[in-house]
Amino acid sequence: MKAIIISIGDELVLGQVADTNAVWLSQQLPPLGITVSEHVTVGDDIDAVTAALTRTGQTADVLLVTGGLGPTDDDLTRYALAKVLAVELELRRDCLEQIEKFFVRMNREMSPTNRVQAMIPAGCEVLANQIGTAPGISVRLAAAAAFFLPGVPSEMKKMFDESVKSKLQELISVDGVKGVIVCRALRVVGTGESNIAQMLGGMMARGRNPLVNSTVADGMISIKIIARSDDETSAQGLIEPVEMEIRKRLGNLIFGCGDETLAGAVADMLRRQRRTLAVAESCTGGWLAKELTDSSGASEFLQAGWVTYSNRAKTDCLGVSTDIIDSYGAVSEQVAGRLAAGARQIAQTDYGLGITGIAGPTGGTDEKPVGLVYIALADETEVKVIRNVFPGDRDQVRRRAVNTALDALRHRLIQRNAKAD
Amino acid sequence: MKAIIISIGDELVLGQVADTNAVWLSQQLPPLGITVSEHVTVGDDIDAVTAALTRTGQTADVLLVTGGLGPTDDDLTRYALAKVLAVELELRRDCLEQIEKFFVRMNREMSPTNRVQAMIPAGCEVLANQIGTAPGISVRLAAAAAFFLPGVPSEMKKMFDESVKSKLQELISVDGVKGVIVCRALRVVGTGESNIAQMLGGMMARGRNPLVNSTVADGMISIKIIARSDDETSAQGLIEPVEMEIRKRLGNLIFGCGDETLAGAVADMLRRQRRTLAVAESCTGGWLAKELTDSSGASEFLQAGWVTYSNRAKTDCLGVSTDIIDSYGAVSEQVAGRLAAGARQIAQTDYGLGITGIAGPTGGTDEKPVGLVYIALADETEVKVIRNVFPGDRDQVRRRAVNTALDALRHRLIQRNAKAD
Repeated sequence: MKAIIISIGDELVLGQVADTNAVWLSQQLPPLGITVSEHVTVGDDIDAVTAALTRTGQTADVLLVTGGLGPTDDDLTRYALAKVLAVELELRRDCLEQIEKFFVRMNREMSPTNRVQAMIPAGCEVLANQIGTAPGISVRLAAAAAFFLPGVPSEMKKMFDESVKSKLQELISVDGVKGVIVCRALRVVGTGESNIAQMLGGMMARGRNPLVNSTVADGMISIKIIARSDDETSAQGLIEPVEMEIRKRLGNLIFGCGDETLAGAVADMLRRQRRTLAVAESCTGGWLAKELTDSSGASEFLQAGWVTYSNRAKTDCLGVSTDIIDSYGAVSEQVAGRLAAGARQIAQTDYGLGITGIAGPTGGTDEKPVGLVYIALADETEVKVIRNVFPGDRDQVRRRAVNTALDALRHRLIQRNAKAD
Repeated sequence: MKAIIISIGDELVLGQVADTNAVWLSQQLPPLGITVSEHVTVGDDIDAVTAALTRTGQTADVLLVTGGLGPTDDDLTRYALAKVLAVELELRRDCLEQIEKFFVRMNREMSPTNRVQAMIPAGCEVLANQIGTAPGISVRLAAAAAFFLPGVPSEMKKMFDESVKSKLQELISVDGVKGVIVCRALRVVGTGESNIAQMLGGMMARGRNPLVNSTVADGMISIKIIARSDDETSAQGLIEPVEMEIRKRLGNLIFGCGDETLAGAVADMLRRQRRTLAVAESCTGGWLAKELTDSSGASEFLQAGWVTYSNRAKTDCLGVSTDIIDSYGAVSEQVAGRLAAGARQIAQTDYGLGITGIAGPTGGTDEKPVGLVYIALADETEVKVIRNVFPGDRDQVRRRAVNTALDALRHRLIQRNAKAD
């Protein structure tokens, strides 16, 4: 089964935003046994959308279309679809009610322009939108099962998971299509892509099944193991020994699987080991705490966090003496250590993390360059400080500081667990 | 003049990497007077590449193709192009020399597989690659001037800037096509897209010049004013009155231009007005402080931040009495107010922001549903608390809470500035 993904929006063909929807959808289909053969992006132009739908409806088994379902004049997908199907648009009462309810829930007045979102080409099935106003549409378009989803990523993802995925699974079982592609991702921290290529060597050669490759996103490496087989069980069977070998070679460089984040992995370890944490951040400005609270349940381990951007806050809130700041500077091993120890002591936690550094772009000197970040981890026995000089811009330096702090704590928790066993 | 951008690579259709090449190329063309009508992405499949080239060569004036020029078995672009042109591949001595020189310069041995990169379809022009091994190709393909560039972003960009851009400018002058496209973005917060469409009415009609449209990314709306004209000055002249009219109609809903962030705008106002801030965050877990420190210079206004995820931290760090937490709950108007006032008082700042809420997915009740967030702003005269029920998932609720807090402070600073005038 072949799928084509169509993205609609002037902002995409103008290069104003990256098309993350096509990326996400492309990741969802192979595990269902559907191969993505093409992405197409067109602007908010009815002729371009109509032409793309007509052409791809003849060549694909599945069409996933995102965007152009909004309430404004440049949202043309519904008109293009009606044109291709040669039907009229109908006001769907059920959709209108859903949209009205949405505004009541939001405590906002509904604009009359939103009414157009309840206009659906005749004969189409509607896909409910739980978190936005644009309903989705499902219909057969020439040879293809076509699904029209909102362009807002969160709405698109929820609609795919809740409505489209099961329909695709049904289609596959009806068509008796065999063969699936199963992908397993291992998440790695603390080394580079070329080093991983060296550690895995021939395992990453092309044309193998499973195929092993690596991708980088947001400074984190994922190692993908992609197996093609008749069914999920046998594909998993192909993946298993390869995964074991990779785990053997990379060891603790692997922190998780799938789309697990490093902060999520550390949060899980803290919860499982019933350990608590307090953080004190200077240059990362709250980013570490934000990452740790991205998933719910952080109240079980994160007792408190401080953003001590100013020197006075370092002194007043965490007891870093002005003497130490004056002698060594705010960006120093000594201040990082006091931040971590102070946070741990005041919040009465098992661990304290302290970060102080020069994220740039200004503020660097020869002795203390931009990218210099001290990261301290305090526990009941010691305060350990790591000195780093991170490359990259402000955003990259801060992200790397957050990840390095999380990874230091992860290794401490692994050690502790090993001792406890 | 219409351009189609084609990206080739399995990693793209598998969703393993985002197609940043198409985004970058799309940004380069409008200033040259070339409209991008479509992006197409296909995998490393000779039939798919051949079909895409054949189809788009008939409809576009310009084709920009990236990827598939490498030395490995899955690099098929040269074969597909030879097939579409119905010519043979030829070994080009000049290309081979370039590639050999590259390896000498890199002090690395050339692999025999790199030899294939000097095989070019007969009759094509070669584009030099200064920083990699893959030469580019330029050729007329049916109706289109086609350019084939390497998939490595840095090589692609350099080749575009050094070889393709001037050729496009030549084409445009030969064809007698004139004109540029200039885009200006206004950033909006505090209302929805449909409301903006109503406020701007006919200004957003399609087919106008300048064209006005709106896009949403990360919960923030941008209003784009896109002008087509003979040269940059006259395009700016078209934009100016439209921008003034939009600013008149939307007033303080507009917080900035271009890619300015709301936190960046608020940070600028605080710095300009020499006012200081402290923040106390529960459900947003440090995100507000992180946003405020995304740009450098936050130490001028951000004195301190607290992440008081636990009740004890609320009491110990910010003096929220246990009585109040027990009586009203941690998520309450009262606690939000005390967090803001406590942060302001302890850090001795002009403003204090406090946030407490239920970000979900669990923890909601009928009375206090998921999405309920109290946001408090304290200054020298009062503590004002806003009650919100934000829709969406955990990430969206937290992001909306951060933006709403920033916007509350922005309006306070606007008021203050107006009084000061």
